[in-house]
Amino acid sequence: MASTLRPKARSTIREFDLIRALSQKHSRRAPSVIRGIGDDGAVIASQAGHWILLTTDLLAEGIHFDLRTATMADIGFRAAAANLSDIAAMGGTPQHVLVALAIPRSGTSSQVHQLYRGMMAACRPHHVALIGGDTSTSDGGWFLSLTVTGMVPHRRALFRTGARVGDYLYVTGTIGDSLAGFKILNEPPSRTNRSSHHEAFSARHRQFLIGRHLRPTARVAEGKWLSAHRFATSAIDISDGISGDLRHICEESHIGAELDLGAIPLSPACRSYAASRKLDPVDLALTGGEDYELLFTVSPRQRPRLEQSAIEQGFSLTCIGRIHPRRFGMQALSTHGTRHRLANRSYEHFT
Amino acid sequence: MASTLRPKARSTIREFDLIRALSQKHSRRAPSVIRGIGDDGAVIASQAGHWILLTTDLLAEGIHFDLRTATMADIGFRAAAANLSDIAAMGGTPQHVLVALAIPRSGTSSQVHQLYRGMMAACRPHHVALIGGDTSTSDGGWFLSLTVTGMVPHRRALFRTGARVGDYLYVTGTIGDSLAGFKILNEPPSRTNRSSHHEAFSARHRQFLIGRHLRPTARVAEGKWLSAHRFATSAIDISDGISGDLRHICEESHIGAELDLGAIPLSPACRSYAASRKLDPVDLALTGGEDYELLFTVSPRQRPRLEQSAIEQGFSLTCIGRIHPRRFGMQALSTHGTRHRLANRSYEHFT
Repeated sequence: MASTLRPKARSTIREFDLIRALSQKHSRRAPSVIRGIGDDGAVIASQAGHWILLTTDLLAEGIHFDLRTATMADIGFRAAAANLSDIAAMGGTPQHVLVALAIPRSGTSSQVHQLYRGMMAACRPHHVALIGGDTSTSDGGWFLSLTVTGMVPHRRALFRTGARVGDYLYVTGTIGDSLAGFKILNEPPSRTNRSSHHEAFSARHRQFLIGRHLRPTARVAEGKWLSAHRFATSAIDISDGISGDLRHICEESHIGAELDLGAIPLSPACRSYAASRKLDPVDLALTGGEDYELLFTVSPRQRPRLEQSAIEQGFSLTCIGRIHPRRFGMQALSTHGTRHRLANRSYEHFT
Repeated sequence: MASTLRPKARSTIREFDLIRALSQKHSRRAPSVIRGIGDDGAVIASQAGHWILLTTDLLAEGIHFDLRTATMADIGFRAAAANLSDIAAMGGTPQHVLVALAIPRSGTSSQVHQLYRGMMAACRPHHVALIGGDTSTSDGGWFLSLTVTGMVPHRRALFRTGARVGDYLYVTGTIGDSLAGFKILNEPPSRTNRSSHHEAFSARHRQFLIGRHLRPTARVAEGKWLSAHRFATSAIDISDGISGDLRHICEESHIGAELDLGAIPLSPACRSYAASRKLDPVDLALTGGEDYELLFTVSPRQRPRLEQSAIEQGFSLTCIGRIHPRRFGMQALSTHGTRHRLANRSYEHFT
């Protein structure tokens, strides 16, 4: 697709050979793909009675990932999971991925292959087909931009806008693990050594949290289920911490919310890590981390059916609050039973 | 969409304010857009009886553009035109654009606004709606990745694969202008001064060629016309010079081709520039430049109707060769009537 006017030999990688190898390796035939990699663009068939979802994410080396703490495969996996999660948060079925990749002059063909391997490892369980992309040399670090398409039946997409006063607030899975994993990866080595002597934080917990950070799970099945049963009035995926993402729902739905801090689901690993580092695990859940769990609202009428169906499906859901009128703002109910205004402490966007 | 784990203040720009401002400014309502910027992803409606086209392009500072020779608006315009041109080469109607942008720490809000202004200036004539994107800080230069969607009636997409032996080879517009414009922009100042004294190369021609490089026209109307009348058996847009893009058609269609070098349409400005710099203008057309004209093949039976209809529509087309069996390879018929193997001299992909 994009070309360049710089004459050749801009990197150690022969672009055309690389694209051909990657497309042969990763572009499985999917019924919706009329034409994949190898033409001016991709051609896909839409399904009658469905809307098309599109989401794009940009990851930059040094900003979103660090090659000292993540492998190329991890980076590819996480980039794909982030986009799959956006589709999940809309209740959709992810279908296709396009990859724009800028490769540093020092980048190797093997690194690119690893990146794709990780990306496709996240995509494969969802039968997401690689249908296109573009590569370029980078004068700086690695840049990766993924576009993922999805589909959802007409009028069944979940938005941030549908929460209503009286709705219950739910999350899937456990929150805070990703930020804990990130912090572990970025601890100075001395700290790690010290902790291994003095603090009861097991290697198994450590691995769990790092895994949750580097290889997050997009809640695709849960999102489709919420949409198919019309359980959710609004939904978002957690990429800014609960505090940041709840704020998105409040702003877009023009409502307020009360968050029950004691109800926030925390993993044993996250609790153990927080205890060993003298941190409040609720802070980890509120303030950051890309957990890619779903945060959604459910009407009181639907609540019993939701809870029953979740048990049948084996989905892990927790009710963590309630929707209030806008003037209520965002308030936190502490474990001591006191209320306070929920401070805006997400790592980004609002800082 | 993508977030980051780096705490705040990573650039002088407040991401959320910026996205809100840009989306308010540029996201016009289009009937196909169910949900644009502001949710986890965009939602679009597909049109019954149509296929969806998707194309993505990555532009990196220092590789694809240089802020010393192009304004931010030029860069945005050219990025959009490149993607629109991919849709045009498939015979489609461009519909939506998603923008992933990495902004250097030194980047300003005003630069981002200019970039979007240029991008939307290219999109507006085609009623292409901005429906999503992602921004990030860059530790290096600017990176811009656009994804454009389009639609085309079922089975009417133009591919690189349909050329048949006996077909005629056509191009729209004039070729070589973009590379000439690029060369002018990159001439050392001394050269420019000297040329203004010694060589008959007018300021008007200079401006024309620079404009063709920085603000290329995607041939959307021509592509739709080729598809609607089933005139073209294959098509591609010229982003690697005729030699490189004809090679794509030959490889994908498993055919050979003869290119009549004397027939290649050259603008007076390109001829004048080449003469003043003692260059062969045909070389400029063959070897590089992102002219974004369409290169396509037409069956002998359709040729009279194509020529007649082009006159009626006011489209500028030139027949520049003929399709041969694969064993013929790619040959050039020189202006002296001699044949030679067409060397592979495109600036990229194959070097």
